[in-house]
Amino acid sequence: MFTDTEGLEILVEEDCLALLASASLGRIAVTIGAVPAIFPVNYRVLDGQIVFRTGEGTKLHHATKGVVVAFEVDRVDEDHREGWSVLVVGVARAVTDAEQADAVLERLPHPWAPGNRQHVVAIVPEFISGRRIHGAP
Amino acid sequence: MFTDTEGLEILVEEDCLALLASASLGRIAVTIGAVPAIFPVNYRVLDGQIVFRTGEGTKLHHATKGVVVAFEVDRVDEDHREGWSVLVVGVARAVTDAEQADAVLERLPHPWAPGNRQHVVAIVPEFISGRRIHGAP
Repeated sequence: MFTDTEGLEILVEEDCLALLASASLGRIAVTIGAVPAIFPVNYRVLDGQIVFRTGEGTKLHHATKGVVVAFEVDRVDEDHREGWSVLVVGVARAVTDAEQADAVLERLPHPWAPGNRQHVVAIVPEFISGRRIHGAP
Repeated sequence: MFTDTEGLEILVEEDCLALLASASLGRIAVTIGAVPAIFPVNYRVLDGQIVFRTGEGTKLHHATKGVVVAFEVDRVDEDHREGWSVLVVGVARAVTDAEQADAVLERLPHPWAPGNRQHVVAIVPEFISGRRIHGAP
């Protein structure tokens, strides 16, 4: 087991990808103007890309610019004081091809929120890293 | 009830602060070089500031620079398809005064992870916003 400078177990990429595929709620970090922001999103991993729905809003607006974003997924058990987190960095883009977007939308869960959320954003992972915390006694 | 362009309820600041105080796991977005990253942290709200432990690492390194960070807390009920998220933007700083740091550490939970996590980072909120999703039928 390899650990980082903070004593956390470093997950290999294979484990990171499996954990990413096992969850459905992640958080994306973008910059709005010069101001950073984080938004929770319901996502899926399809064809190696992280895809999620969005409406006409900030996330899409920024995602369409082909900017680099951070995307994070974690699961934390506060009772047992253990958990993991996976961080993906990649370029986000809007899926503008209607056929491709429809194919993705069919495989995404129905949106929870009201409003038109028929836009699809895809993140192509460029760096993936992960850490696991084993509960300290 | 006010809603944003995506149809989500906009929470007033008072509600955002109450929700922030009710949770203990948040995510902080920082930039490492030019690359964005998100890390989960266990936090508390003390004297109106978001405080958390960290070791000698990236988060602290960046936090000590007095940079603007995003900090997000959410709670999502996937079964009932509802939830909320609160976003804080503010300047992060290391609490370097030993007496002040000790006072904060006493009020923070014990660290889960191994390693020396006796450093304290504080975020002074400058902007707070929040949204609530009511489950769509």
